[in-house]
Amino acid sequence: MATINDIAKHAGVSAATVSRVINDSGYVSTETRKIVEKAIADLNYVPNRHAQNLRRGATRNFGILTSSLEEPVLARIEPFMQFANEANYTTTLFNTYNDPQREINALDRLKSKELDGIFLIYRTNEWSAIEPYTKFGPIVTLHNIERVDLNIKSVFIDHYEGYKLILEDLWQNGARSFINILGRSTGVNTKRRIKAYFDFCEEHKIKPHDIHPFLDITSRKGTLKAIELLDEMPTKPDAIITHSDQVASFIVSHFRKHDIEMPEEVAVVGFDNLIISDLMDFTSMDYSIKEQGRNACRLLLNELGAGPYELKPLQFTLSKRGTTK
Amino acid sequence: MATINDIAKHAGVSAATVSRVINDSGYVSTETRKIVEKAIADLNYVPNRHAQNLRRGATRNFGILTSSLEEPVLARIEPFMQFANEANYTTTLFNTYNDPQREINALDRLKSKELDGIFLIYRTNEWSAIEPYTKFGPIVTLHNIERVDLNIKSVFIDHYEGYKLILEDLWQNGARSFINILGRSTGVNTKRRIKAYFDFCEEHKIKPHDIHPFLDITSRKGTLKAIELLDEMPTKPDAIITHSDQVASFIVSHFRKHDIEMPEEVAVVGFDNLIISDLMDFTSMDYSIKEQGRNACRLLLNELGAGPYELKPLQFTLSKRGTTK
Repeated sequence: MATINDIAKHAGVSAATVSRVINDSGYVSTETRKIVEKAIADLNYVPNRHAQNLRRGATRNFGILTSSLEEPVLARIEPFMQFANEANYTTTLFNTYNDPQREINALDRLKSKELDGIFLIYRTNEWSAIEPYTKFGPIVTLHNIERVDLNIKSVFIDHYEGYKLILEDLWQNGARSFINILGRSTGVNTKRRIKAYFDFCEEHKIKPHDIHPFLDITSRKGTLKAIELLDEMPTKPDAIITHSDQVASFIVSHFRKHDIEMPEEVAVVGFDNLIISDLMDFTSMDYSIKEQGRNACRLLLNELGAGPYELKPLQFTLSKRGTTK
Repeated sequence: MATINDIAKHAGVSAATVSRVINDSGYVSTETRKIVEKAIADLNYVPNRHAQNLRRGATRNFGILTSSLEEPVLARIEPFMQFANEANYTTTLFNTYNDPQREINALDRLKSKELDGIFLIYRTNEWSAIEPYTKFGPIVTLHNIERVDLNIKSVFIDHYEGYKLILEDLWQNGARSFINILGRSTGVNTKRRIKAYFDFCEEHKIKPHDIHPFLDITSRKGTLKAIELLDEMPTKPDAIITHSDQVASFIVSHFRKHDIEMPEEVAVVGFDNLIISDLMDFTSMDYSIKEQGRNACRLLLNELGAGPYELKPLQFTLSKRGTTK
């Protein structure tokens, strides 16, 4: 049976060019395309199952399901969309507003073949209601998939290590008292950050602060409440560590407007290393958030046989700027 | 024939409640809903054509078509989505990446009734190719619709007035030399801003600067090039006026990192009054950008007979902050 290499030889082009013609991805001149298509016909080439699936009934459209359009969500959506676009896939974004029925309606589009795959950023339904849809197309998520039996891929990254790196850097630069501004108490990332902080306290033999007043700080309103608590403290902590650049940006802005010097009076650290941390010149933890979005797209493409795309490793690197020593 | 008011009277509730039940929008308790439904049955009430259309075959889903997900676009998308959500409509976002075929594919969903209406933020095709789709559902756009024959509604706002207000405020505070950082040279807003600047120069008898090096500054890369030009100038202008908060944020960030004092050495003004202008404490022109997004949704709902929702006026107000006198 003829292979891609046979076609390439027969047509006098590279195997990559043949692959581009078969998968209808990337640029091939009309002339070259005709030569390759002739070679395919001449040699009675039968594409493999993956390539067939890719062409048969595929709409070349990925769904993105989210429950909000906040900065850290967009930071993954945009590179995902761009990567899909370059692979010649369109994208359709559904905002479920945490409505389980809307999530199901969007998942149903896998069944009706309107979608070839789904990037499920945050889910609303139980996994048991979601997983059956993978029969109709691949699903990739940001969530931590703890059940290995689930046929769902994840680009989850454990924040424990990144959070620990922040704390250790602050410690090495003399910080001894800390306030952690934490996100959704039900979130895995929050739990892992709390564990990192408690482990850090134990290792350095310091007493952890009461985290409860600083839990579930997600919105601007929540952050303003946390800022009030910080302002009421008789002495500022040496360092404030936040779970997002969004929260950090509100705090940094507040301190600057009130002439509180950073890092001299208090250090502030963000998380995600979004462009705002560069613009506002505050330290933030980078973990290749854009690459995470692209990895989600790579996983979907691989599942559909359009790859193989190699996943890029996500690494924690502290981007140190003006708000820390 | 019975009217909504008759139903309301019979059921002992307000006309608004009856409307909510008929249109299935907004909160109505199960008990009240039953009473209203009974009244509808008792009086043999026949809903009007709009309400019928609304229920018959409607998917209660609005499409949002955009070619990018930049901040100023998102600033309209989010309130649009939220308003739609509150009116019990879902939203589906299509990123066309300026591909005319993708735009047509999305418009086709009006025909197939997958979409009830479309918020076309930026178009790629000619109006003559887009307009026929209004047969299948309403289309609202951000573009300036100059052809009155087109059956397309717009939430366009002329930037001339806002730009003039900025220039006059700077003048009153002593600025005499200006640099305008301008967007896409083909855009209506850019043309209107240039006209506002030239009119201003004529009125105050000053010589306009050469705008060409500062035209088509949209990306971060473009802004960095403009910043280079600014740095090379032997003397800074008294004021720099930008066409977006995004561009202003790069400039303000650059000046702060290089200890260039604002407004003493140079004033900087943004446009759109997004949250970044507050966080980074720079002056920006507000024109109720969120309300503009909501107005787009109100227009669609009105066209579908789900209103009437009153459009909110968009007003120019200069939000003065730390970068201007």
